[in-house]
Amino acid sequence: MHYRIEKDTMGEVRVPKEKYWGAQTQRSVENFRIGPPGSMPSEVIRAFGCVKKAAAITNCELGELSVEKMNAIAMVCDEIIAGELAEHFPLVIWQTGSGTQTNMNVNEVIANRAHVLLGNSIGHGSLLLHPHDDVNKSQSSNDTFPTAMHIAACTSLATITLPGLRQLHSELSLKAEAFGSLVKIGRTHFMDAVPLTLGQEFSGYASQLEKGITALVTSVSPLSELALGATAVGTGLNAPNGFAAKAADAIAMLTGLPFITAGNKFAALAAHDAMVVAHASLKSIAVVLMKITNDIRFLASGPRCAIGEIVLPSNEPGSSIMPGKVNPTQAEALAMICAQVMGNDVVMTVAGSGGVLELNTFKPVMIAAFLQSAQLIGEGCRSFAEKCVRGIYPDHERMQRHLENSLMLVTALNAHIGYEKSATIAQKAFREKTTLRDAAVSTGYVTHQQFDEWVNPQNMIG
Amino acid sequence: MHYRIEKDTMGEVRVPKEKYWGAQTQRSVENFRIGPPGSMPSEVIRAFGCVKKAAAITNCELGELSVEKMNAIAMVCDEIIAGELAEHFPLVIWQTGSGTQTNMNVNEVIANRAHVLLGNSIGHGSLLLHPHDDVNKSQSSNDTFPTAMHIAACTSLATITLPGLRQLHSELSLKAEAFGSLVKIGRTHFMDAVPLTLGQEFSGYASQLEKGITALVTSVSPLSELALGATAVGTGLNAPNGFAAKAADAIAMLTGLPFITAGNKFAALAAHDAMVVAHASLKSIAVVLMKITNDIRFLASGPRCAIGEIVLPSNEPGSSIMPGKVNPTQAEALAMICAQVMGNDVVMTVAGSGGVLELNTFKPVMIAAFLQSAQLIGEGCRSFAEKCVRGIYPDHERMQRHLENSLMLVTALNAHIGYEKSATIAQKAFREKTTLRDAAVSTGYVTHQQFDEWVNPQNMIG
Amino acid sequence: MHYRIEKDTMGEVRVPKEKYWGAQTQRSVENFRIGPPGSMPSEVIRAFGCVKKAAAITNCELGELSVEKMNAIAMVCDEIIAGELAEHFPLVIWQTGSGTQTNMNVNEVIANRAHVLLGNSIGHGSLLLHPHDDVNKSQSSNDTFPTAMHIAACTSLATITLPGLRQLHSELSLKAEAFGSLVKIGRTHFMDAVPLTLGQEFSGYASQLEKGITALVTSVSPLSELALGATAVGTGLNAPNGFAAKAADAIAMLTGLPFITAGNKFAALAAHDAMVVAHASLKSIAVVLMKITNDIRFLASGPRCAIGEIVLPSNEPGSSIMPGKVNPTQAEALAMICAQVMGNDVVMTVAGSGGVLELNTFKPVMIAAFLQSAQLIGEGCRSFAEKCVRGIYPDHERMQRHLENSLMLVTALNAHIGYEKSATIAQKAFREKTTLRDAAVSTGYVTHQQFDEWVNPQNMIG
Amino acid sequence: MHYRIEKDTMGEVRVPKEKYWGAQTQRSVENFRIGPPGSMPSEVIRAFGCVKKAAAITNCELGELSVEKMNAIAMVCDEIIAGELAEHFPLVIWQTGSGTQTNMNVNEVIANRAHVLLGNSIGHGSLLLHPHDDVNKSQSSNDTFPTAMHIAACTSLATITLPGLRQLHSELSLKAEAFGSLVKIGRTHFMDAVPLTLGQEFSGYASQLEKGITALVTSVSPLSELALGATAVGTGLNAPNGFAAKAADAIAMLTGLPFITAGNKFAALAAHDAMVVAHASLKSIAVVLMKITNDIRFLASGPRCAIGEIVLPSNEPGSSIMPGKVNPTQAEALAMICAQVMGNDVVMTVAGSGGVLELNTFKPVMIAAFLQSAQLIGEGCRSFAEKCVRGIYPDHERMQRHLENSLMLVTALNAHIGYEKSATIAQKAFREKTTLRDAAVSTGYVTHQQFDEWVNPQNMIG
Repeated sequence: MHYRIEKDTMGEVRVPKEKYWGAQTQRSVENFRIGPPGSMPSEVIRAFGCVKKAAAITNCELGELSVEKMNAIAMVCDEIIAGELAEHFPLVIWQTGSGTQTNMNVNEVIANRAHVLLGNSIGHGSLLLHPHDDVNKSQSSNDTFPTAMHIAACTSLATITLPGLRQLHSELSLKAEAFGSLVKIGRTHFMDAVPLTLGQEFSGYASQLEKGITALVTSVSPLSELALGATAVGTGLNAPNGFAAKAADAIAMLTGLPFITAGNKFAALAAHDAMVVAHASLKSIAVVLMKITNDIRFLASGPRCAIGEIVLPSNEPGSSIMPGKVNPTQAEALAMICAQVMGNDVVMTVAGSGGVLELNTFKPVMIAAFLQSAQLIGEGCRSFAEKCVRGIYPDHERMQRHLENSLMLVTALNAHIGYEKSATIAQKAFREKTTLRDAAVSTGYVTHQQFDEWVNPQNMIG
Repeated sequence: MHYRIEKDTMGEVRVPKEKYWGAQTQRSVENFRIGPPGSMPSEVIRAFGCVKKAAAITNCELGELSVEKMNAIAMVCDEIIAGELAEHFPLVIWQTGSGTQTNMNVNEVIANRAHVLLGNSIGHGSLLLHPHDDVNKSQSSNDTFPTAMHIAACTSLATITLPGLRQLHSELSLKAEAFGSLVKIGRTHFMDAVPLTLGQEFSGYASQLEKGITALVTSVSPLSELALGATAVGTGLNAPNGFAAKAADAIAMLTGLPFITAGNKFAALAAHDAMVVAHASLKSIAVVLMKITNDIRFLASGPRCAIGEIVLPSNEPGSSIMPGKVNPTQAEALAMICAQVMGNDVVMTVAGSGGVLELNTFKPVMIAAFLQSAQLIGEGCRSFAEKCVRGIYPDHERMQRHLENSLMLVTALNAHIGYEKSATIAQKAFREKTTLRDAAVSTGYVTHQQFDEWVNPQNMIG
Repeated sequence: MHYRIEKDTMGEVRVPKEKYWGAQTQRSVENFRIGPPGSMPSEVIRAFGCVKKAAAITNCELGELSVEKMNAIAMVCDEIIAGELAEHFPLVIWQTGSGTQTNMNVNEVIANRAHVLLGNSIGHGSLLLHPHDDVNKSQSSNDTFPTAMHIAACTSLATITLPGLRQLHSELSLKAEAFGSLVKIGRTHFMDAVPLTLGQEFSGYASQLEKGITALVTSVSPLSELALGATAVGTGLNAPNGFAAKAADAIAMLTGLPFITAGNKFAALAAHDAMVVAHASLKSIAVVLMKITNDIRFLASGPRCAIGEIVLPSNEPGSSIMPGKVNPTQAEALAMICAQVMGNDVVMTVAGSGGVLELNTFKPVMIAAFLQSAQLIGEGCRSFAEKCVRGIYPDHERMQRHLENSLMLVTALNAHIGYEKSATIAQKAFREKTTLRDAAVSTGYVTHQQFDEWVNPQNMIG
Repeated sequence: MHYRIEKDTMGEVRVPKEKYWGAQTQRSVENFRIGPPGSMPSEVIRAFGCVKKAAAITNCELGELSVEKMNAIAMVCDEIIAGELAEHFPLVIWQTGSGTQTNMNVNEVIANRAHVLLGNSIGHGSLLLHPHDDVNKSQSSNDTFPTAMHIAACTSLATITLPGLRQLHSELSLKAEAFGSLVKIGRTHFMDAVPLTLGQEFSGYASQLEKGITALVTSVSPLSELALGATAVGTGLNAPNGFAAKAADAIAMLTGLPFITAGNKFAALAAHDAMVVAHASLKSIAVVLMKITNDIRFLASGPRCAIGEIVLPSNEPGSSIMPGKVNPTQAEALAMICAQVMGNDVVMTVAGSGGVLELNTFKPVMIAAFLQSAQLIGEGCRSFAEKCVRGIYPDHERMQRHLENSLMLVTALNAHIGYEKSATIAQKAFREKTTLRDAAVSTGYVTHQQFDEWVNPQNMIG
């Protein structure tokens, strides 16, 4: 590989000739060979494009940066936002916990790429933009990185997570409606219980998810507060008056999302509670999805030797050894996602509580875990909705057979003969392997006519 | 011990003579010898007092229960709510996951205690109240237990957790104000950084906690939805029309809290997402408190050989071997509480996702973990506020000395001589162990006058 | 209440007249009103009895303590070990993180109780034993508390956890043997698969648990290393030469467990990795138990409308509303225990990683969480073994019916006609709701005779 | 893009023309668009290369597969093991929980790649190898995937994790030795305590890590048991006698690792306890590393306004705004890794406990989380060892100043004047801001000479 020489305050470094990054990025590449290269999420890089552009616009507006420099910065930021310079961001999550090196990576790429866009060749001639004094003007890693975290998080939630959740909610609601009149046996403690409709079961799932979505939407609103303008420790040192609020406005305009400047900048650098809280909502949704995914697998279990009351779409051969097997694969993928999100929530807990005085230095792992959860939940729900829930249909015959066999219809007799006599009937039927009706009549507590009148599943579903 | 004979649908059981519980409670005592006896939280028992009283009132109102029986039930419930019958509730958390046995414990105690209050002796004569057919009328364990969970959770949050949190918030805010003009060195990455005031540091804590409280208050609102009236599987089988809404009204009146009937009863039995979500807020607050508690210990570290910028009240001798030692004991208690709450959040995650079809059978462990977290956070914050934060005072001398020694005041020069020259000055001062001022002037980049004008901590705090 | 005046290095305190504790305990009572009173586990107090007795013996042996004082200390320690002085230990878990206050509680109780045993009355006359200079001689909270932690942990594991686990393993093994010839349908992905025996299923559980026990036993061996003798920071300051090793020997003799002195005392005070590692084994066992408990509920699900291949003993009425219902209550209690232990593992993780320099100050929460897990696992397994597993019996009829209905027996044809043709047969039978045999023959791929020869469940179980 | 038509038992599918995968892989690509494409870890694919080669060799040896077919399979497997066919494995983690689709991906690639290696063009002519009947012969996804999990896990542990851990242990041990005579103040509860040497502090870290490594090595041994030969449900259906043991031998030979066939095949498919247990050891090591990384940052804190007793190598400029700042970046990266591993442990817990009857269907997420932890711990430790620990040097001057200032040297007086008088001296010195010596003498409890004789840090370090 060919190299050029770059330098920073610590001296000279060799950098791959055609890459736009500079000395500090290169030091990080060499110092942090941990995990797959380039693991810093691309969403963070794109969000940094917004941050740097907004800062340049604001600096210019406040008379701190020339229009020429502002334009140069903005030009490169547009490319970054479009994802065009991905190969120039080689850094990993497992770097300094403030994300300083990624901030500098962005600063360096903007300075060098602008140089090229202005007609120069990389490594030759003096740069219009100084990575620190121009691109990073009025900023610090300590406020830009958390700002990029919030932008990336909100964007992922808005474009991936919520659409996926809403699609799944919609499919579940449709099933709740479609299955509204299908009376079936209920089950509590894994055991046969009194009846309800299949639609009622699905209405429970839809209701759970709806509340989860509502809670998520509410809980993410603190993510709209941005740290930008706080600079190194929250005091805004070296940022001009008014920078913070104007820069937040600029980001709101660039992203179309309702960002504002953070009310307390010290908390904004030293803690990432908004991330912790928002992820806790994702985790709570994972709790919901785990229940749904387990239930659907349980209801579809069989097809012949378990419950088998619903049938899932068969999307692929299920087994490499058992021919004709169909498995609830979408539910499994979603369940695995839930496990990952539950684990990521502990990452957020540990990392979120790890701030020390003016700075939390778990920023990269927090945003990486958050974005993984947000993406997996969104895409997992979309996939589960489209490839599984949408195609579910009931097995009427099995539902009916189970209903007829159940002993728990006896509960309808409580109001007529009391709990204790009803229990005697159920126990007798179980012991003697007879129908409930036969057992009931044989005890003498009810007549055939009474039984048929009182024990009618259609009347037991509320 | 003396015994009397009680029976249920499975046969006869010997019960301690003077206890009000019956056969089903006794079976549970014998079948579940796990952990300390009587571990089912007393808050749950008291909440059950409300549930049974509200159900009796509503049953009476709807013509399902005589006034005489209603009064008998209510009379005992008032004792239960007052905590007077504690010895009659011997069951443990680690029983059936629906809490059925505790529901029956309550039913049995009410029936027997009423018998006694009505002038009879226990074990003699026929009972006015039948545990199932009267006390449990229109109810199931599956809806009463989750109703009691919500009542207990909301009560604990309102009476212990939130007051404790608010008291701590208040003390932190007072300190933020009191320390508002004390300029000190900031620290990022554990390392000296640019200055801020001690009040700004405390304002960060107050702000974090304020947001945590707001998020908690918002997130607990779904706890106001009660399952009562859903009976066995959510359909309301065996409950009269209108029971659910009226019973929730009655509970709201009895507790003074804004309870309503749950929108979707199937979800209300089969999942406890409202508990999961509310606990996630407690956990997020634990994340906040862990940061605060660590920072305060770090700031007080020393008193002579570390930071030592604040002094904590000395409440007790700190060491059994090192005389005169004062330790941040309140902070440590709170940190341990945070660890427990973080762990309890995983309990809620695992248990909350474990529902199967019409019922979640992790109810007792969920409410026990929740109440522990709610109590510990509330009481821990109160203790920390009163015994630690309130008494904190600054060590002005150390703060001033640190400020004078710091190299990071160099940051103020960025705007005048650029980042790179500033870095040279700081590195020189560090290497040569001189003051920043001497290093700055010796490089020739600034004069003494410029240095004194530009590098003034008072101007660096925003 | 009546009081007497006690004093410590910070001044005078009023103490309840009849209690043996002194000033420092009383300060803690007043400073830490958090959670239920007296929550410090009694196992820790009893372990402290051993520690203090062993220290006194060793001090005496090394000429640091008179025989008279040694005897006085030992006399009280024997009472503490026997659990007789429980009312004199009022402190909570949520105190200083080093457990200093509990160490002082023990020191004070020993001094005052000895005073009484020697014929004096509490609060009058001068004490033979000074809490610090005699009872705490050669010790610090920092080494005595972790020593008590290890003693308490090992004792609980040996007397509760392991016996419970072994009992469950034994019952599962007996079932594996008893059910060894019962061929049944297997299930993967919740879906019908190829056959195995019920005994093979139970052999899997027994094997899992056996490995879990082995791993636990191995992993707890570092708990045998004791911190005693390290005093305040690990250097052994103020302890005579040879104290550490001799004191560990004395504890080994007192407990009958193979304790030795820790190899590195700095790690022994500053970290509790041995506790973290041992609890991780408890958590891994919880993972095993959760699987077993779920499977057993799934196999017993029904009895008529799900799998229902096994029947669980019916220990109590299962439902307060559904008469005759029998639920897998023991399995539910155990599942709740697993959830708690999984959460406690995060407590251990957070607390265990929270040491700072020479001391970890999460000691009380760590030992409390550990002991809870150890007790719950042990007692939960015993209960589950005795009240559930022992009484399980198979429903031969349902097992046979499922076997006959299954489509996955088609797998036996792979070797004869290949995977693809086999798949066609299974799909046809599913679609047309026929038996596999009919579908197979109707495709022409096999004859009746071939089918009956090749597809025989008895030959498919290895 | 150009396509060719492939088919499986469900019908035809269009597959990218030049890719070696077939219909089932393509279905998975289309059905599981979740997260980044190709996320199934490459270590799993390479491990599958071993599995398929070993199976082919064993099938051939047992007369089930021709030598020609065996050679064709082995040839492709060698390429897979070498990582040469990476582009042909497009599947994601978030697929079916048995990993069936990745097993089929491997089967299909082997069949098609062999076709090409034998001189044919892809999509033309009939294949020598049938993906199911030849490549998958005697196997199922249910046994091959867990076998690949164990191979991948053991390989990563052996080649990345353990070398990294040992390197860090070695660097810490070297420091323990090098710093053995540097007496410094100890700190407990963040507060000044009695002295020890810097080498003793580092010996604690080395000891912790050594025990962690030992526990890891012990705990991973169950990973050597392989599921291969169990086929679909553990009975070994469709695998010839002797296959399991011989195939394990073949894998042991191919990998050079001591693999054997699993003792209980039912557990080997239905649970992944060995993965859970081994990851728990990784998590316990993360607990250790978090302590070490925090301590090193605390000791290096400053350089002027906190402890500053050690100096870390300065690898890069630390701040984008504060010139000359040096941060503990390697420690931060490692701390973030610890947070991730702690979270991953909950993934393992939830996923590991999620098996149902004959199969655990969380396999892909378990191996992915495991491999991430194993890689991050190994590479993080290597980086931390090389770039941080190796370059640490002490600041003698600060260590000495702290030692002189400390009040806790008073502890040395306990043995001479008792705990209470010693406490008076320390309190007086703190209150009056004098030296301990002055305070001691002014109380009259000791003379100058006694103080100098008794209070000598060099004598207090054991």
